[in-house]
Amino acid sequence: MGKVTADISMSLDGFIAGPHDDRENGLGVGGERLHEWLYDLSNFHERHGTEGGVQNQDDEVLDESFRNVGAVIIGRRMFDIAEEAWGDNPPFHVPVHIVTHRPRETLVKEGGTTYFFVTDGIESALRQAQTAADGKDVSIGGANIIQGFIKAGLLDEIQVHVIPVLLGEGRPLFENMSPDPIELEIVRVIASPEVTHLKYRVIKH
Amino acid sequence: MGKVTADISMSLDGFIAGPHDDRENGLGVGGERLHEWLYDLSNFHERHGTEGGVQNQDDEVLDESFRNVGAVIIGRRMFDIAEEAWGDNPPFHVPVHIVTHRPRETLVKEGGTTYFFVTDGIESALRQAQTAADGKDVSIGGANIIQGFIKAGLLDEIQVHVIPVLLGEGRPLFENMSPDPIELEIVRVIASPEVTHLKYRVIKH
Repeated sequence: MGKVTADISMSLDGFIAGPHDDRENGLGVGGERLHEWLYDLSNFHERHGTEGGVQNQDDEVLDESFRNVGAVIIGRRMFDIAEEAWGDNPPFHVPVHIVTHRPRETLVKEGGTTYFFVTDGIESALRQAQTAADGKDVSIGGANIIQGFIKAGLLDEIQVHVIPVLLGEGRPLFENMSPDPIELEIVRVIASPEVTHLKYRVIKH
Repeated sequence: MGKVTADISMSLDGFIAGPHDDRENGLGVGGERLHEWLYDLSNFHERHGTEGGVQNQDDEVLDESFRNVGAVIIGRRMFDIAEEAWGDNPPFHVPVHIVTHRPRETLVKEGGTTYFFVTDGIESALRQAQTAADGKDVSIGGANIIQGFIKAGLLDEIQVHVIPVLLGEGRPLFENMSPDPIELEIVRVIASPEVTHLKYRVIKH
Protein backbone atom coordinates (compact mmCIF):
# COMPACT_ATOMS: atom_id res chain seq x y z
CA MET A 1 0.00 0.00 0.00
CA GLY A 2 1.17 3.52 -0.74
CA LYS A 3 1.77 6.27 1.78
CA VAL A 4 -0.65 8.90 3.00
CA THR A 5 0.88 12.25 2.17
CA ALA A 6 0.12 15.95 2.33
CA ASP A 7 1.74 18.69 0.31
CA ILE A 8 0.94 22.27 1.09
CA SER A 9 2.24 25.83 0.74
CA MET A 10 2.44 27.79 3.99
CA SER A 11 3.61 31.29 4.91
CA LEU A 12 6.38 31.46 7.51
CA ASP A 13 3.70 32.53 9.99
CA GLY A 14 1.69 29.40 9.37
CA PHE A 15 -1.11 30.34 6.98
CA ILE A 16 -2.20 28.35 3.92
CA ALA A 17 -4.65 31.00 2.73
CA GLY A 18 -5.33 34.63 3.42
CA PRO A 19 -8.43 35.86 5.26
CA HIS A 20 -11.90 35.75 3.66
CA ASP A 21 -11.22 32.71 1.48
CA ASP A 22 -14.41 31.94 -0.41
CA ARG A 23 -15.68 31.06 -3.90
CA GLU A 24 -14.78 34.49 -5.21
CA ASN A 25 -11.24 34.25 -3.90
CA GLY A 26 -10.28 30.68 -3.11
CA LEU A 27 -6.96 31.54 -1.51
CA GLY A 28 -8.26 34.50 0.47
CA VAL A 29 -6.92 38.04 0.48
CA GLY A 30 -3.20 37.92 -0.31
CA GLY A 31 -3.23 34.11 -0.41
CA GLU A 32 -2.23 33.91 -4.08
CA ARG A 33 1.24 34.84 -2.84
CA LEU A 34 1.56 31.34 -1.39
CA HIS A 35 1.07 29.66 -4.76
CA GLU A 36 3.12 32.04 -6.90
CA TRP A 37 6.04 29.63 -6.95
CA LEU A 38 3.86 27.10 -8.78
CA TYR A 39 2.36 29.05 -11.64
CA ASP A 40 5.37 29.04 -13.97
CA LEU A 41 6.33 25.42 -13.46
CA SER A 42 6.15 22.92 -16.28
CA ASN A 43 4.32 20.36 -14.15
CA PHE A 44 1.77 22.96 -13.08
CA HIS A 45 1.06 23.82 -16.72
CA GLU A 46 0.78 20.16 -17.66
CA ARG A 47 -1.72 19.51 -14.85
CA HIS A 48 -3.81 22.46 -15.93
CA GLY A 49 -3.72 21.61 -19.62
CA THR A 50 -1.64 24.58 -20.69
CA GLU A 51 1.66 24.70 -22.58
CA GLY A 52 5.14 25.68 -21.47
CA GLY A 53 6.56 26.36 -18.06
CA VAL A 54 9.98 26.16 -16.46
CA GLN A 55 11.78 22.99 -15.49
CA ASN A 56 13.80 23.66 -12.37
CA GLN A 57 14.29 22.32 -8.86
CA ASP A 58 10.81 23.42 -7.81
CA ASP A 59 9.35 21.70 -10.84
CA GLU A 60 11.07 18.46 -9.80
CA VAL A 61 9.58 18.78 -6.31
CA LEU A 62 6.17 19.29 -7.86
CA ASP A 63 6.64 16.37 -10.23
CA GLU A 64 7.59 14.12 -7.33
CA SER A 65 4.52 15.26 -5.40
CA PHE A 66 2.24 14.31 -8.29
CA ARG A 67 4.01 11.24 -9.63
CA ASN A 68 3.13 8.80 -6.88
CA VAL A 69 -0.38 10.01 -6.13
CA GLY A 70 -3.14 7.52 -6.96
CA ALA A 71 -6.02 9.23 -5.17
CA VAL A 72 -6.80 12.42 -3.30
CA ILE A 73 -8.85 13.29 -0.20
CA ILE A 74 -10.06 16.82 0.48
CA GLY A 75 -12.69 18.50 2.63
CA ARG A 76 -16.06 19.75 1.42
CA ARG A 77 -15.21 23.35 2.18
CA MET A 78 -12.15 23.29 -0.09
CA PHE A 79 -14.16 21.51 -2.77
CA ASP A 80 -17.02 24.01 -2.65
CA ILE A 81 -14.66 26.95 -2.87
CA ALA A 82 -12.64 25.55 -5.77
CA GLU A 83 -15.04 23.34 -7.75
CA GLU A 84 -15.84 26.02 -10.29
CA ALA A 85 -12.22 27.07 -10.70
CA TRP A 86 -11.15 23.47 -11.27
CA GLY A 87 -13.68 23.23 -14.13
CA ASP A 88 -14.40 20.29 -16.42
CA ASN A 89 -10.85 18.95 -16.49
CA PRO A 90 -9.63 19.35 -12.90
CA PRO A 91 -5.90 19.27 -12.12
CA PHE A 92 -6.08 16.00 -10.13
CA HIS A 93 -6.34 13.37 -12.90
CA VAL A 94 -7.08 10.73 -10.22
CA PRO A 95 -10.11 9.87 -8.04
CA VAL A 96 -10.86 12.60 -5.47
CA HIS A 97 -12.69 11.72 -2.26
CA ILE A 98 -14.50 14.61 -0.62
CA VAL A 99 -15.25 14.26 3.09
CA THR A 100 -18.63 15.86 3.73
CA HIS A 101 -21.82 15.73 5.77
CA ARG A 102 -23.91 16.47 2.68
CA PRO A 103 -24.29 13.53 0.27
CA ARG A 104 -23.94 14.23 -3.44
CA GLU A 105 -23.83 12.06 -6.54
CA THR A 106 -20.46 10.93 -7.82
CA LEU A 107 -19.24 13.29 -10.54
CA VAL A 108 -17.10 11.98 -13.37
CA LYS A 109 -14.99 14.76 -14.89
CA GLU A 110 -12.55 14.78 -17.80
CA GLY A 111 -8.89 13.77 -17.62
CA GLY A 112 -9.20 11.04 -15.01
CA THR A 113 -10.73 13.01 -12.15
CA THR A 114 -13.84 11.60 -10.46
CA TYR A 115 -15.36 13.26 -7.41
CA PHE A 116 -16.67 10.86 -4.75
CA PHE A 117 -18.56 12.30 -1.77
CA VAL A 118 -17.87 10.37 1.42
CA THR A 119 -20.25 10.95 4.32
CA ASP A 120 -18.95 8.51 6.91
CA GLY A 121 -15.71 10.15 8.01
CA ILE A 122 -12.04 10.31 7.22
CA GLU A 123 -11.22 6.68 7.95
CA SER A 124 -13.81 5.54 5.45
CA ALA A 125 -12.55 8.11 2.96
CA LEU A 126 -9.04 6.76 3.46
CA ARG A 127 -10.11 3.15 2.85
CA GLN A 128 -11.91 4.13 -0.33
CA ALA A 129 -9.04 6.30 -1.52
CA GLN A 130 -6.50 3.58 -0.82
CA THR A 131 -8.53 1.12 -2.84
CA ALA A 132 -8.79 3.63 -5.66
CA ALA A 133 -5.07 4.44 -5.46
CA ASP A 134 -4.23 0.80 -6.11
CA GLY A 135 -0.87 0.79 -4.36
CA LYS A 136 0.03 4.39 -5.04
CA ASP A 137 -0.01 7.20 -2.47
CA VAL A 138 -3.10 8.95 -1.18
CA SER A 139 -2.62 12.71 -1.05
CA ILE A 140 -4.75 14.72 1.35
CA GLY A 141 -5.52 18.42 1.11
CA GLY A 142 -6.98 21.28 3.10
CA ALA A 143 -6.16 22.39 6.63
CA ASN A 144 -9.08 20.64 8.34
CA ILE A 145 -8.41 17.33 6.63
CA ILE A 146 -4.68 17.49 7.34
CA GLN A 147 -5.37 18.29 11.01
CA GLY A 148 -7.86 15.43 11.25
CA PHE A 149 -5.46 12.94 9.68
CA ILE A 150 -2.55 13.96 11.89
CA LYS A 151 -4.67 13.75 15.05
CA ALA A 152 -5.98 10.34 14.01
CA GLY A 153 -2.43 9.10 13.37
CA LEU A 154 -3.23 8.51 9.70
CA LEU A 155 -0.71 10.78 7.99
CA ASP A 156 2.65 9.30 6.98
CA GLU A 157 4.39 12.29 5.41
CA ILE A 158 3.86 16.01 5.11
CA GLN A 159 5.73 18.35 2.81
CA VAL A 160 5.42 22.02 3.69
CA HIS A 161 6.48 24.54 1.07
CA VAL A 162 7.48 27.48 3.26
CA ILE A 163 6.93 30.81 1.52
CA PRO A 164 9.03 33.79 2.64
CA VAL A 165 6.17 36.02 3.67
CA LEU A 166 4.31 36.90 6.87
CA LEU A 167 0.64 37.06 5.88
CA GLY A 168 -0.40 38.31 9.32
CA GLU A 169 -3.79 36.65 9.16
CA GLY A 170 -5.63 33.93 7.31
CA ARG A 171 -6.32 30.22 7.56
CA PRO A 172 -3.70 28.45 9.73
CA LEU A 173 -2.35 25.07 8.68
CA PHE A 174 -2.06 23.89 12.26
CA GLU A 175 -4.82 24.79 14.70
CA ASN A 176 -7.13 22.80 16.89
CA MET A 177 -4.37 20.26 17.20
CA SER A 178 -3.94 17.92 20.11
CA PRO A 179 -1.96 19.35 23.06
CA ASP A 180 0.20 16.22 22.93
CA PRO A 181 3.31 16.98 20.88
CA ILE A 182 3.74 15.02 17.67
CA GLU A 183 7.29 14.28 16.63
CA LEU A 184 8.36 14.55 13.01
CA GLU A 185 11.44 13.28 11.26
CA ILE A 186 13.08 15.49 8.66
CA VAL A 187 13.06 13.51 5.42
CA ARG A 188 14.47 16.16 3.13
CA VAL A 189 15.00 19.89 2.78
CA ILE A 190 15.22 21.55 -0.62
CA ALA A 191 16.19 25.20 -0.59
CA SER A 192 15.09 27.10 -3.66
CA PRO A 193 15.47 30.84 -4.09
CA GLU A 194 11.76 31.57 -3.56
CA VAL A 195 10.50 28.68 -1.43
CA THR A 196 11.83 26.12 1.04
CA HIS A 197 10.51 22.58 0.69
CA LEU A 198 10.47 20.78 4.05
CA LYS A 199 9.45 17.13 3.94
CA TYR A 200 8.73 15.30 7.20
CA ARG A 201 7.72 11.83 8.27
CA VAL A 202 5.12 11.79 11.03
CA ILE A 203 6.24 9.63 13.95
CA LYS A 204 3.35 7.47 15.17
CA HIS A 205 2.99 5.96 18.61
CA MET B 1 25.87 50.48 12.26
CA GLY B 2 25.17 46.77 12.69
CA LYS B 3 21.99 44.94 11.79
CA VAL B 4 18.98 44.27 13.97
CA THR B 5 18.55 40.52 14.09
CA ALA B 6 16.44 37.85 15.74
CA ASP B 7 17.31 34.22 16.21
CA ILE B 8 14.72 31.85 17.55
CA SER B 9 13.75 28.18 17.69
CA MET B 10 10.20 27.42 16.54
CA SER B 11 8.16 24.24 16.19
CA LEU B 12 6.79 23.56 12.70
CA ASP B 13 3.41 24.67 14.03
CA GLY B 14 4.78 28.04 15.04
CA PHE B 15 5.43 27.87 18.79
CA ILE B 16 8.54 29.13 20.56
CA ALA B 17 7.51 27.74 23.97
CA GLY B 18 5.02 25.24 25.26
CA PRO B 19 1.96 26.24 27.29
CA HIS B 20 2.26 27.50 30.89
CA ASP B 21 5.68 29.07 30.47
CA ASP B 22 6.61 30.65 33.78
CA ARG B 23 9.50 30.95 36.24
CA GLU B 24 9.24 27.29 37.16
CA ASN B 25 9.37 26.22 33.55
CA GLY B 26 10.71 28.95 31.32
CA LEU B 27 10.04 27.13 28.07
CA GLY B 28 6.60 25.87 29.05
CA VAL B 29 5.33 22.30 29.00
CA GLY B 30 7.19 20.42 26.28
CA GLY B 31 9.07 23.55 25.23
CA GLU B 32 12.50 22.16 26.11
CA ARG B 33 12.12 20.12 22.94
CA LEU B 34 12.68 23.30 20.94
CA HIS B 35 16.11 23.92 22.44
CA GLU B 36 17.40 20.34 22.50
CA TRP B 37 19.49 20.95 19.40
CA LEU B 38 21.50 23.54 21.33
CA TYR B 39 22.47 21.78 24.51
CA ASP B 40 25.35 19.68 23.16
CA LEU B 41 26.93 22.38 21.03
CA SER B 42 30.39 23.72 21.81
CA ASN B 43 29.27 27.35 21.52
CA PHE B 44 26.37 26.71 23.87
CA HIS B 45 28.73 25.27 26.47
CA GLU B 46 31.12 28.16 26.07
CA ARG B 47 28.34 30.71 26.58
CA HIS B 48 27.18 28.93 29.69
CA GLY B 49 30.65 28.51 31.13
CA THR B 50 30.78 24.73 30.83
CA GLU B 51 33.30 22.52 29.06
CA GLY B 52 33.06 20.40 25.96
CA GLY B 53 30.37 20.16 23.34
CA VAL B 54 30.20 19.18 19.70
CA GLN B 55 31.45 21.25 16.81
CA ASN B 56 29.20 20.65 13.84
CA GLN B 57 27.09 22.58 11.35
CA ASP B 58 24.62 23.61 14.04
CA ASP B 59 27.46 24.84 16.19
CA GLU B 60 28.66 27.01 13.31
CA VAL B 61 25.19 28.47 12.96
CA LEU B 62 25.15 29.22 16.66
CA ASP B 63 28.62 30.72 16.55
CA GLU B 64 27.58 32.98 13.71
CA SER B 65 24.51 34.08 15.66
CA PHE B 66 26.64 35.09 18.64
CA ARG B 67 29.75 36.40 16.91
CA ASN B 68 28.34 39.65 15.59
CA VAL B 69 26.08 40.54 18.48
CA GLY B 70 27.08 43.64 20.41
CA ALA B 71 23.90 44.13 22.43
CA VAL B 72 20.60 42.39 23.12
CA ILE B 73 17.00 43.56 23.56
CA ILE B 74 14.39 41.40 25.28
CA GLY B 75 11.00 41.90 26.92
CA ARG B 76 10.37 42.11 30.63
CA ARG B 77 8.30 38.93 30.65
CA MET B 78 11.15 36.86 29.21
CA PHE B 79 13.57 38.50 31.63
CA ASP B 80 11.41 37.82 34.68
CA ILE B 81 10.94 34.19 33.69
CA ALA B 82 14.62 33.54 33.01
CA GLU B 83 16.54 35.93 35.31
CA GLU B 84 17.10 33.31 37.98
CA ALA B 85 18.08 30.60 35.51
CA TRP B 86 20.59 32.94 33.84
CA GLY B 87 22.27 33.47 37.21
CA ASP B 88 25.32 35.59 38.05
CA ASN B 89 27.12 34.99 34.76
CA PRO B 90 24.35 35.15 32.15
CA PRO B 91 24.90 33.69 28.67
CA PHE B 92 24.77 37.06 26.88
CA HIS B 93 28.20 38.56 27.66
CA VAL B 94 27.02 41.89 26.18
CA PRO B 95 24.67 44.67 27.37
CA VAL B 96 21.03 43.52 27.56
CA HIS B 97 18.23 46.09 27.24
CA ILE B 98 14.96 45.02 28.82
CA VAL B 99 11.84 46.76 27.55
CA THR B 100 9.49 47.22 30.49
CA HIS B 101 6.88 49.45 32.09
CA ARG B 102 8.42 48.92 35.54
CA PRO B 103 11.68 50.83 36.16
CA ARG B 104 14.52 48.98 37.86
CA GLU B 105 18.13 49.81 38.63
CA THR B 106 20.76 48.76 36.12
CA LEU B 107 22.27 45.42 37.10
CA VAL B 108 25.90 44.65 36.33
CA LYS B 109 26.49 40.90 36.13
CA GLU B 110 29.63 38.86 35.55
CA GLY B 111 31.09 38.04 32.15
CA GLY B 112 30.15 41.23 30.34
CA THR B 113 26.39 41.15 30.80
CA THR B 114 24.69 44.29 32.13
CA TYR B 115 20.92 44.54 32.41
CA PHE B 116 19.45 47.93 31.49
CA PHE B 117 15.74 48.52 32.05
CA VAL B 118 14.22 50.73 29.36
CA THR B 119 10.82 52.24 30.11
CA ASP B 120 10.25 54.43 27.07
CA GLY B 121 9.57 51.88 24.36
CA ILE B 122 11.29 49.74 21.75
CA GLU B 123 12.65 52.59 19.65
CA SER B 124 14.45 54.02 22.64
CA ALA B 125 15.68 50.54 23.57
CA LEU B 126 16.99 50.16 20.04
CA ARG B 127 18.87 53.47 20.12
CA GLN B 128 20.47 52.58 23.44
CA ALA B 129 21.32 49.06 22.29
CA GLN B 130 22.82 50.35 19.04
CA THR B 131 25.02 52.75 20.96
CA ALA B 132 26.08 49.95 23.29
CA ALA B 133 26.67 47.58 20.36
CA ASP B 134 29.18 50.02 18.91
CA GLY B 135 28.81 48.96 15.29
CA LYS B 136 27.96 45.34 15.94
CA ASP B 137 24.50 43.77 15.59
CA VAL B 138 21.64 44.15 18.01
CA SER B 139 19.90 40.84 18.66
CA ILE B 140 16.31 40.90 19.87
CA GLY B 141 14.53 38.11 21.70
CA GLY B 142 11.07 37.04 22.81
CA ALA B 143 7.89 36.76 20.77
CA ASN B 144 6.40 40.12 21.83
CA ILE B 145 9.59 42.03 21.13
CA ILE B 146 10.08 40.34 17.75
CA GLN B 147 6.46 41.09 16.78
CA GLY B 148 6.86 44.71 17.87
CA PHE B 149 10.07 45.18 15.93
CA ILE B 150 8.67 43.61 12.77
CA LYS B 151 5.51 45.73 12.91
CA ALA B 152 7.57 48.87 13.49
CA GLY B 153 9.80 48.05 10.50
CA LEU B 154 12.84 47.81 12.77
CA LEU B 155 13.96 44.22 12.19
CA ASP B 156 16.54 43.57 9.47
CA GLU B 157 16.96 39.78 9.66
CA ILE B 158 15.29 36.87 11.35
CA GLN B 159 16.66 33.36 11.62
CA VAL B 160 14.11 30.71 12.52
CA HIS B 161 15.41 27.35 13.66
CA VAL B 162 12.51 25.08 12.65
CA ILE B 163 12.20 22.07 14.95
CA PRO B 164 10.54 18.94 13.57
CA VAL B 165 7.73 18.74 16.09
CA LEU B 166 4.11 19.84 16.33
CA LEU B 167 3.69 21.14 19.87
CA GLY B 168 -0.06 21.63 19.45
CA GLU B 169 -0.20 24.57 21.82
CA GLY B 170 2.05 27.14 23.43
CA ARG B 171 3.37 30.62 22.76
CA PRO B 172 3.23 31.49 19.04
CA LEU B 173 6.12 33.34 17.43
CA PHE B 174 3.81 35.25 15.11
CA GLU B 175 0.52 36.52 16.47
CA ASN B 176 -1.06 39.94 16.75
CA MET B 177 0.75 40.82 13.55
CA SER B 178 -0.42 43.43 11.10
CA PRO B 179 -2.91 42.18 8.48
CA ASP B 180 -0.65 43.71 5.83
CA PRO B 181 1.66 41.00 4.49
CA ILE B 182 5.37 41.46 5.10
CA GLU B 183 7.69 40.09 2.45
CA LEU B 184 10.87 38.29 3.40
CA GLU B 185 13.88 37.37 1.33
CA ILE B 186 15.49 34.00 1.88
CA VAL B 187 19.09 34.69 2.88
CA ARG B 188 20.16 31.14 3.62
CA VAL B 189 18.86 27.68 4.44
CA ILE B 190 20.94 25.19 6.40
CA ALA B 191 19.51 21.71 6.66
CA SER B 192 20.78 19.74 9.63
CA PRO B 193 19.48 16.32 10.62
CA GLU B 194 17.53 17.63 13.62
CA VAL B 195 16.76 21.26 12.79
CA THR B 196 16.36 23.50 9.75
CA HIS B 197 17.91 26.96 9.95
CA LEU B 198 15.98 29.47 7.83
CA LYS B 199 17.47 32.95 7.64
CA TYR B 200 15.43 35.77 6.12
CA ARG B 201 15.87 39.44 5.40
CA VAL B 202 12.80 41.52 6.21
CA ILE B 203 11.77 43.65 3.24
CA LYS B 204 10.90 47.17 4.36
CA HIS B 205 8.72 49.65 2.54
